[in-house]
Amino acid sequence: MARLRFHISMSLDGFIAGPNQNEENPLGEGGEQLHEWALPLATWRASHGREGGEVNASSRVLEESLENIGATVMGRNMFGGSGAWGDEPWEGWWGEEPPFHMPVFVVTHHPRAAVAKQGGTTFTFVTDGIESALEQAREAAAGKDVALGGGANVAQHYLKAGLIDDMTIHLVPVLLGDGAQLFDKLGNADVRLECTRAIEAPGVTHLRYRVVK
Amino acid sequence: MARLRFHISMSLDGFIAGPNQNEENPLGEGGEQLHEWALPLATWRASHGREGGEVNASSRVLEESLENIGATVMGRNMFGGSGAWGDEPWEGWWGEEPPFHMPVFVVTHHPRAAVAKQGGTTFTFVTDGIESALEQAREAAAGKDVALGGGANVAQHYLKAGLIDDMTIHLVPVLLGDGAQLFDKLGNADVRLECTRAIEAPGVTHLRYRVVK
Repeated sequence: MARLRFHISMSLDGFIAGPNQNEENPLGEGGEQLHEWALPLATWRASHGREGGEVNASSRVLEESLENIGATVMGRNMFGGSGAWGDEPWEGWWGEEPPFHMPVFVVTHHPRAAVAKQGGTTFTFVTDGIESALEQAREAAAGKDVALGGGANVAQHYLKAGLIDDMTIHLVPVLLGDGAQLFDKLGNADVRLECTRAIEAPGVTHLRYRVVK
Repeated sequence: MARLRFHISMSLDGFIAGPNQNEENPLGEGGEQLHEWALPLATWRASHGREGGEVNASSRVLEESLENIGATVMGRNMFGGSGAWGDEPWEGWWGEEPPFHMPVFVVTHHPRAAVAKQGGTTFTFVTDGIESALEQAREAAAGKDVALGGGANVAQHYLKAGLIDDMTIHLVPVLLGDGAQLFDKLGNADVRLECTRAIEAPGVTHLRYRVVK
């Protein structure tokens, strides 16, 4: 069956975004530091339609994370930020041509019609839970894997439910001190992980985990 | 000058001990999982006067952490637990023959006389701050390095003050959910780290950081 794969940048103190995330600063204060390792890479630039860039030990890791993905699931905050939707649904953080180029399923409590964007990205809003979103994404992925896009909240729901097959944490040696934590809502849930690979690269350590079922 | 070196086991969600630490369970609930990688090693057993044991990718890391150390600094909780000292000073967690075999300087607000234990461990109680404890430890180390023994509290004071030269985090893929966090009191202190080595081993990933001054 199609695997659910999750890769995310996290600070050494466990944050995946800084404090005070908003429409103008979706990564929160200091959060941009979590992604500095990726931005110079040719792989990242190409995936965002840009030329040039570097190749280093992170390149292969980033390439892998993009390979064989047929659909994405994400939480509402990842689509468009908490509290940002009024009566007039807005279009999310991602602009006219989001970088997904595939069907994206957004887990939310607020029903709304699907949105098709330029470049092949569609946003479908799923109100009946994380399992349903994953099921729809698997169907849309047509044999490829499904990526879990984040954020912290929905990721923890998937992790707790034992639905993530493969998790890569891009561990960034900064301390944010506050913000959105990746593991703060799991209580003492019995989540068992095994590190299957550790790769050092400039400004980041890539840690790949198998979720033991 | 003698370097201050810190190595510590941490859960993936940032805890170095579980909740409800007490005299009978100094590691807190679930905290023993953080040290399971070390216990079977021949190196660990030898350092605690025992024979036998395994050799794996962790062995060299543990050996390094024990090499060329001439003195240790630690916090009061690491010596003997918070609230455990009454009018009658108790002897700490470490028993009659502590595994340090060197001078140990305990940072505390409570003055008391030094204690000499079997096997060469002495505990000296320092009431005038972390810099003073480090200075005394450096002198006692006589040219060797100083180990920071923990716990979380005093480690963060040393980190914030820029006094740690070298930090190794033994990252254990468990989620404790609660307990003593390694990085919860730093706020937005400007602590800059660089990962200089990542080693995968059974049940643990060893991440070595240089503290950028």
